[in-house]
Amino acid sequence: MQCKKNFRDVFYVSDGTAITSETLGHAVLGQFPIEIAQITLPFVETEERAIYVKSLINQKHVSTGQKPLVFFSIVIPEVKAIIEQGNGYFYDVLNCLVAPLKRDLGLAPSPQLHRSHSIEKDAASYQNRIAAVEYTLAHDDGMSLNNLEQADIILLGVSRCGKTPTSLYLAMQFGIRAVNYPFIEDDMASLKLPKEIEPFRFKAFGLTINTDRLMAIRHERYVNSEYCSQKQCEKELNRVESLFRREAIPYLNTTTLSVEEISTRLLELSGLKRVMC
Amino acid sequence: MQCKKNFRDVFYVSDGTAITSETLGHAVLGQFPIEIAQITLPFVETEERAIYVKSLINQKHVSTGQKPLVFFSIVIPEVKAIIEQGNGYFYDVLNCLVAPLKRDLGLAPSPQLHRSHSIEKDAASYQNRIAAVEYTLAHDDGMSLNNLEQADIILLGVSRCGKTPTSLYLAMQFGIRAVNYPFIEDDMASLKLPKEIEPFRFKAFGLTINTDRLMAIRHERYVNSEYCSQKQCEKELNRVESLFRREAIPYLNTTTLSVEEISTRLLELSGLKRVMC
Repeated sequence: MQCKKNFRDVFYVSDGTAITSETLGHAVLGQFPIEIAQITLPFVETEERAIYVKSLINQKHVSTGQKPLVFFSIVIPEVKAIIEQGNGYFYDVLNCLVAPLKRDLGLAPSPQLHRSHSIEKDAASYQNRIAAVEYTLAHDDGMSLNNLEQADIILLGVSRCGKTPTSLYLAMQFGIRAVNYPFIEDDMASLKLPKEIEPFRFKAFGLTINTDRLMAIRHERYVNSEYCSQKQCEKELNRVESLFRREAIPYLNTTTLSVEEISTRLLELSGLKRVMC
Repeated sequence: MQCKKNFRDVFYVSDGTAITSETLGHAVLGQFPIEIAQITLPFVETEERAIYVKSLINQKHVSTGQKPLVFFSIVIPEVKAIIEQGNGYFYDVLNCLVAPLKRDLGLAPSPQLHRSHSIEKDAASYQNRIAAVEYTLAHDDGMSLNNLEQADIILLGVSRCGKTPTSLYLAMQFGIRAVNYPFIEDDMASLKLPKEIEPFRFKAFGLTINTDRLMAIRHERYVNSEYCSQKQCEKELNRVESLFRREAIPYLNTTTLSVEEISTRLLELSGLKRVMC
């Protein structure tokens, strides 16, 4: 039975993907000292489904003795009304911004189903994002250094410093075509920029990481190998950071950063524009 | 000069990645009949940077004659105060939910810098997401059918029906380990589930797409080849859909859906849990 103090059940309910409700609810709940269990219910577009959602909310209320928190975004008034009859606390995630925007713009809103994350809203920008994911996949981990004229950014760094997840996040979230190239052991003796990258060096961006963190990450894959030794990690990091400085390539230490934070900082530092869809 | 009617400059300003401000601002603006130009300013944590942000807002006001819309999330009161002095319309994206939550929970909020999208908030769940991206990459496009016991979902379908971007989105956004396997021309004569997938068929999920859309997508890559002919696309789709029905594998038509929508529906239909970070 979930009846600890400061424990709450949380529902994210939407007539779309519920990604906006999740993002916002998650961010605002992070400010409160509570533990949560989360349930996401997307595509709630019919009264039938709304009745089901209401029953889930009421079940949680009965089983825990506490009203669940419900972050929602529902356009159809009848569907919304059914859900709000449940025994929960309800937070309309968009509505509290709609009224002030209406006033400031002097325009009436016209709420539509599937507002966010829909392919139809902006087909060109959606296709661009998918093309960016394909380009980025084809240029992951030094796999190809062709067509660099199409790249938006070229990430450089030692193996396992965060290049691949960052590249994919940049592509998926922002429609950025990202190439990533690892400097490996064989490169270390006389480290230099690959000749294919030279003409596009203005797109190059370095990632680095602290030795301890790199050792830990490498250790997860290759226990006790030379590859994850302190000596090896330190050597690679020193040489690659020297290269970045020598070649005046801007670089970022990823040790304490998430892919979201790395990506956002890269965009900021490189002046690349985000494409949102 | 940007002085069209119903055109607005929009700023997303945050002391973190600004992803929450972007997501919410984007969603709410979608309800209004306006055209927008967007500028994102993350990591606004100092008074110095706030003064810079204020100057950008004021510049836009002067050059367009219209106050820009500013969606923001800033914790430090002094930083926030400087920005709000700018000539814009200001929308605090989290604040309008904080007050009702405070009332309903009977708890005081403790706003913190870098609330969302931070590696430190939940390191285990973050590491899980990154591991899911790695697993998914290693199992993209039929590359490997090893370690399927670790898979959360196995996507099946013809080439170019949306498996790869969906797999990566599931991994990146929700920490789902996704395998994807394409049925190719050679499989078509006697189509069946690969023997490696058989023991894990309960994880299998089919993607399909309308013939016209598949032809268009394939055509972008391989102009006028047999591969993108109506006859070939129809044949592949018919056989693969027959397989899904014969083997009782649930499937989804992706024709009009974005990766966000496909992923959300898959989670919904398969009962997989999202991992958020």
